[in-house]
Amino acid sequence: MSRESEKVAIIGGTGPQGKGLALRLAMAGTSVVLGSRDAQKAHALAEELVAQLAELGGNAASITGLSMEAATQAASSMVILSVPYSAHDATLNTLKPLLTGKILVDIVVPLAPGNPKAVEMPAAGSVTEHAQALLGDSVPVVGALHNVSAITLNDLSRPINCDILVCGNDLASKKQVMALIDTMGTKAYNAGLAESARCIEAITPILIRLNISKEVPFSHAGIRICPPQH
Amino acid sequence: MSRESEKVAIIGGTGPQGKGLALRLAMAGTSVVLGSRDAQKAHALAEELVAQLAELGGNAASITGLSMEAATQAASSMVILSVPYSAHDATLNTLKPLLTGKILVDIVVPLAPGNPKAVEMPAAGSVTEHAQALLGDSVPVVGALHNVSAITLNDLSRPINCDILVCGNDLASKKQVMALIDTMGTKAYNAGLAESARCIEAITPILIRLNISKEVPFSHAGIRICPPQH
Repeated sequence: MSRESEKVAIIGGTGPQGKGLALRLAMAGTSVVLGSRDAQKAHALAEELVAQLAELGGNAASITGLSMEAATQAASSMVILSVPYSAHDATLNTLKPLLTGKILVDIVVPLAPGNPKAVEMPAAGSVTEHAQALLGDSVPVVGALHNVSAITLNDLSRPINCDILVCGNDLASKKQVMALIDTMGTKAYNAGLAESARCIEAITPILIRLNISKEVPFSHAGIRICPPQH
Repeated sequence: MSRESEKVAIIGGTGPQGKGLALRLAMAGTSVVLGSRDAQKAHALAEELVAQLAELGGNAASITGLSMEAATQAASSMVILSVPYSAHDATLNTLKPLLTGKILVDIVVPLAPGNPKAVEMPAAGSVTEHAQALLGDSVPVVGALHNVSAITLNDLSRPINCDILVCGNDLASKKQVMALIDTMGTKAYNAGLAESARCIEAITPILIRLNISKEVPFSHAGIRICPPQH
């Protein structure tokens, strides 16, 4: 499928992470449909984002807004889950019957309630593994985009300052998601099976800790894979 | 204590990681004592490394070699544990009575037996947490240097191409270890409590996986913390 005809759903698309991803993906030429429990809110935000992109000029792809269910059904192949951890399971249980034949891209980080400097991993090991167990093997789950800051995604004046570690048990799905991510000007790396999410999801609170500390002269830092210097 | 009078022990110092660390630390002006089950082997390697550094010129600090026990006793404050995971507990049990008043710097990664692309975390959550439990609260354990490749450490023609994530429950000890690491031309970051090692130790197999894959045009890559670009 060509990029032009690809339509990606972002569930929880009205949150800061989802909004930033929608902007970056549409700028890169991929149509986006925001999905929210409140379809009206999704629709209104989509109109705002379209107006924001129009002001920048360029040929951004479309952004629309629908209910979570309708957005999932509208996705051509990839559904990005970008809800707070507390809403993760309820959302997936609702969407499960609609996900057949699609790829779930899980970007949720299990931050500890009240403490964004720590994670509370689910018993399955990670959210990605938990989602894969919940959905069953017929819906491939790919973990990605856990470590990129919402502020960075929404600051369109700057490139995304980090690489993206992608994991999952289905290689073809993972490659499709990596290709989508690379369109945003970032570099996606295949970080292995879903179990790698135990590490990748837990990088986020370490970055949050650093970024809010007074020990460093920066904020919103991400991580990059750095080969040796020549 | 000034850098000149600091003497750091590296237990398992005759392995590739320990050897590379010894070279980098001595180059940076910190005296090193290699500790090995085979004191004679440690002594012989120390002589080799001293000769290697002499050839490069410069004013490297001393490198000597002793038994594990004697090296631990000789350390002024920091003892780096750089043994294979399979030898981790036996080594710590042997050294425990000698570690009082010192900081254990645990760099061991629990790679899965026969599969360096995966970890098998101990029940405590991470090797760092396990070591802290084993040694008790009177010996602070700092987790560090898990993600830097031995090849990179030993290639003295190049700077170390990654940042170092440091974790542990005792802030003063962590700061002392971070200051030591920074002398090698790397940047150490405070990555939080010992539980962060669950993430940090698990970054290593992800890097190994990437570095040995044909998907990327590099090897021996590490990770860096990257602030947004201006």
